[in-house]
Amino acid sequence: MNPYSLYEKVKSLKPVVHHLTNWVTIYDCAGIVKTFGASPVMAHAPEEMEDMTSIASALVLNIGTLTVDFIEAMKKAGKTANKKGIPIILDVCGAGATHLRDEKCFELLNTLKIGVIKGNSSEISRMAGENVKTQGVDSTDTGLNPVKIARKLADQRQCTVVMTGATDIVTGAGKTLLIKNGHPLMSAVVGTGCMAASVIGTFAAVEKDLVAASACGLVCFEVAAEIAAEKSRGPGTFKTGLYDEIYLLQREDIEKRQKIESLS
Amino acid sequence: MNPYSLYEKVKSLKPVVHHLTNWVTIYDCAGIVKTFGASPVMAHAPEEMEDMTSIASALVLNIGTLTVDFIEAMKKAGKTANKKGIPIILDVCGAGATHLRDEKCFELLNTLKIGVIKGNSSEISRMAGENVKTQGVDSTDTGLNPVKIARKLADQRQCTVVMTGATDIVTGAGKTLLIKNGHPLMSAVVGTGCMAASVIGTFAAVEKDLVAASACGLVCFEVAAEIAAEKSRGPGTFKTGLYDEIYLLQREDIEKRQKIESLS
Amino acid sequence: MNPYSLYEKVKSLKPVVHHLTNWVTIYDCAGIVKTFGASPVMAHAPEEMEDMTSIASALVLNIGTLTVDFIEAMKKAGKTANKKGIPIILDVCGAGATHLRDEKCFELLNTLKIGVIKGNSSEISRMAGENVKTQGVDSTDTGLNPVKIARKLADQRQCTVVMTGATDIVTGAGKTLLIKNGHPLMSAVVGTGCMAASVIGTFAAVEKDLVAASACGLVCFEVAAEIAAEKSRGPGTFKTGLYDEIYLLQREDIEKRQKIESLS
Repeated sequence: MNPYSLYEKVKSLKPVVHHLTNWVTIYDCAGIVKTFGASPVMAHAPEEMEDMTSIASALVLNIGTLTVDFIEAMKKAGKTANKKGIPIILDVCGAGATHLRDEKCFELLNTLKIGVIKGNSSEISRMAGENVKTQGVDSTDTGLNPVKIARKLADQRQCTVVMTGATDIVTGAGKTLLIKNGHPLMSAVVGTGCMAASVIGTFAAVEKDLVAASACGLVCFEVAAEIAAEKSRGPGTFKTGLYDEIYLLQREDIEKRQKIESLS
Repeated sequence: MNPYSLYEKVKSLKPVVHHLTNWVTIYDCAGIVKTFGASPVMAHAPEEMEDMTSIASALVLNIGTLTVDFIEAMKKAGKTANKKGIPIILDVCGAGATHLRDEKCFELLNTLKIGVIKGNSSEISRMAGENVKTQGVDSTDTGLNPVKIARKLADQRQCTVVMTGATDIVTGAGKTLLIKNGHPLMSAVVGTGCMAASVIGTFAAVEKDLVAASACGLVCFEVAAEIAAEKSRGPGTFKTGLYDEIYLLQREDIEKRQKIESLS
Repeated sequence: MNPYSLYEKVKSLKPVVHHLTNWVTIYDCAGIVKTFGASPVMAHAPEEMEDMTSIASALVLNIGTLTVDFIEAMKKAGKTANKKGIPIILDVCGAGATHLRDEKCFELLNTLKIGVIKGNSSEISRMAGENVKTQGVDSTDTGLNPVKIARKLADQRQCTVVMTGATDIVTGAGKTLLIKNGHPLMSAVVGTGCMAASVIGTFAAVEKDLVAASACGLVCFEVAAEIAAEKSRGPGTFKTGLYDEIYLLQREDIEKRQKIESLS
């Protein structure tokens, strides 16, 4: 588990990361991938899904501003990804908030082989079949044991599950990691959750072990966020600084600050 | 009329503000709501409008990049809002620029009970039935008496009208307020108009008197803009600073700077 | 060829620049036009294309997140532009990456009289009929002679061609200019390519000679980028600074820094 080595691998391989994402944070999803040195591409026309996904090394699906047609385009992209062995990251943004979101997330999970399911605690709980309600797209206190829920979903879907929060839980293939990096300003800024999924996609594009890829991506992203937060006045300068600090990230920053714990 | 108290109320209640807005400034509409401490949600699939609007405390409709289908989704969301007593803010972005915009705005006004109509002087004039033409989405000098026009529209539609400009006019239920805060840099940045509507929605989510909610929201937003402008080099640093200053806003900033006048 | 004079002309005439662009960089396309002092409008409903394009002085088409329907709206806008003599700038974003993109770009080129085709070296090569492949939306080394290719496409389509890169090539009507301004940080930020097309549109709105308009727009944009880069820590502060520096651009900055060469 060496986050900085994967960061360097991303910078040197510059993988293409194909997104079908939401219209709110689409710029930041692309921006964060680019800042890590990879090559984001956002495209959703059904007629080009096969071509576009084929040139990518990872596929990120984010249902934030879903429509029925958009989900169909995701399925087309996802089928190509599955056929070619390209890992799929699914951000179940807003799951639990509406029936449509639940239904479409389950449809994607049933239709495609998803590599990483990413969400906050209420979203992941809903995906694991718990009867929780999400208030819009912000996390709601579920009162459930988060590690248990994340492991349950990873078992159900035989994939990696990332539950973001003050402590992030990354679990899959019998391993569970806790990541305790990050800063409260992250949740004062729209889009850090979506960016996290794009970062996971970027690292999954260069590392087949999806638990390792997810954990390393999150560590790099959140260590940069810590550094940016220390130099910020508020959410505006924080977000600007986040881009700078990711771009300037040094091996010693990661090594000094990374907080990954392995749960048995 | 206590803008800072409402600002604190937003921070403590964290209301969900549902938007159907345009693709240009959608990030900033969400971002500004979040920075005030509330919870933005952007969703437009007709199948989830009832569910999503139901969990919100205000609904913001912005026609900036309208399509015919998108307006139908707005009507669905709006009907739910009306049934549940959730206030609707309508930003008539670009009214007067094309026949489609005029027609669809009138359709929304005729179909839904709108709480606040927000626009610049040419947009509001067009909505009041004046024969003015808008050049795209930027305000055009109409040569009309702005207070008269705003009051006329408020009477016609029995709602609150907000006409933004160097002096903002907020009028409804027999009251008219002038707000003289803000800074010229605001109009050098794309999206401050859309953000203003989202801010009004955020304050309307915690205050039933929509004239007070609109005026207080605008004062907080524009006082923060004044502080940000004083520390900026140009539109880039101004916009970054705007997020910081909203987040850091203090009671004394508001009390010292607020310029609300009541017109009889 | 006086870039600063055109910059001043934009500021004083404030032309409306109509865009049908992608959902990733739509904010920055609008923002950059506004920062130059012009008036961006983004609209794509087929029912308002004739009205909206008619009030514009330039039309920018960018296929970054194309769909089949979106291209049809572009054709409607383009036909109005052609009828009224409004210059069209086409950003062939991602051409060469998928069959759909190639097909739709050729359709636009065959249906409309395009004033300026803008792309990176692999995109322009594909449009000129070369059998190259683009990796997503980032430029790929084609191994071809870029000036020859740009001139070939300009001849084929009887228009101006802008091939962006470390050295930009602007060619049309028998003239070829090389622009050697800019900074490597530009390609570390998502959207600078799209912004370049919007800048060209803004300058084409006030100058009929499209080779001159394109070259002058690029010089102003890239000189501002150089100044911003010198004051930046990384891509975050660079992008914020880019807006400031465009807004604050001085005649002497341009005159001291501009690097335009004429090729015979």
